[in-house]
Amino acid sequence: MTSNQTMLKMVFDRWYGALKNWDALLTAISDEQLQKEIAPGKNRGIYLLGHLIAVHDDMLILLDMGDKLYPELHRTFLASPDKAIASIPSAKELRAYWTKQCEVLKQKMESLKPEEWFEKHTAVSAEDFSKEPHRNKLNIIITRTTHLAYHTGQLVLLK
Amino acid sequence: MTSNQTMLKMVFDRWYGALKNWDALLTAISDEQLQKEIAPGKNRGIYLLGHLIAVHDDMLILLDMGDKLYPELHRTFLASPDKAIASIPSAKELRAYWTKQCEVLKQKMESLKPEEWFEKHTAVSAEDFSKEPHRNKLNIIITRTTHLAYHTGQLVLLK
Repeated sequence: MTSNQTMLKMVFDRWYGALKNWDALLTAISDEQLQKEIAPGKNRGIYLLGHLIAVHDDMLILLDMGDKLYPELHRTFLASPDKAIASIPSAKELRAYWTKQCEVLKQKMESLKPEEWFEKHTAVSAEDFSKEPHRNKLNIIITRTTHLAYHTGQLVLLK
Repeated sequence: MTSNQTMLKMVFDRWYGALKNWDALLTAISDEQLQKEIAPGKNRGIYLLGHLIAVHDDMLILLDMGDKLYPELHRTFLASPDKAIASIPSAKELRAYWTKQCEVLKQKMESLKPEEWFEKHTAVSAEDFSKEPHRNKLNIIITRTTHLAYHTGQLVLLK
């Protein structure tokens, strides 16, 4: 048996490392560059930023950490493809949302006790969880880390 | 304490899931498409494929699983940027290398006992590992999963 704390360190090192990589890119990219498509005919940088905020807002629900901060972004950045909705927040606004959301998530995540990360997330029933104990809160961090890395590989193309 | 097996399932579900996503894309993309740049002036698809094979070959060393399968790829796809070396393997050859390497890695990974994943990888000293037990073999899988996801987010642009 390995301690839960070792496992938490492995997972959160990657989560915070992936956020750091994204943030370094976001800082290096101007608001004007964010309006550009990552490749011809593909998503714009600004859509990727809004999309990540919408996905990370869902983490608050999945982790049972309260309400979403920006529920209005779901329609624009999750339920719709890029350019389907004409009126979207500015790059400046989305940057501010992102910074705020990262702070809130970090604070809420740090308030959990180690063993609580191995409890079920909200999208799995108690019955299913008894058979599938890997469907825990920590697994939400693992899957969202690869999601973040996927889109970081795209944002870097605007640099 | 949570069982090591639950942790292994969480990590390997993401690793094999990320490989499946990459493979589905690779199957959907022709050899001709692989010769294209993912975005103007950026890496070609074929470079990403070679790069992943070179990085996963290094996993064999880090996990103490024997020699690399394709050590000659290191210079072209890790030590050099795309287009720096004119003569590279064909898409057909790299696809065959990739398939073979995935099989070998899977076989070797499945031969490890659960507790062995929490032993040190080869790039950390025994002394450092005693202070930093998260620098274990399983952590290599976690970091290479996000690496794979990062480049999958790029390969998808050729589709």
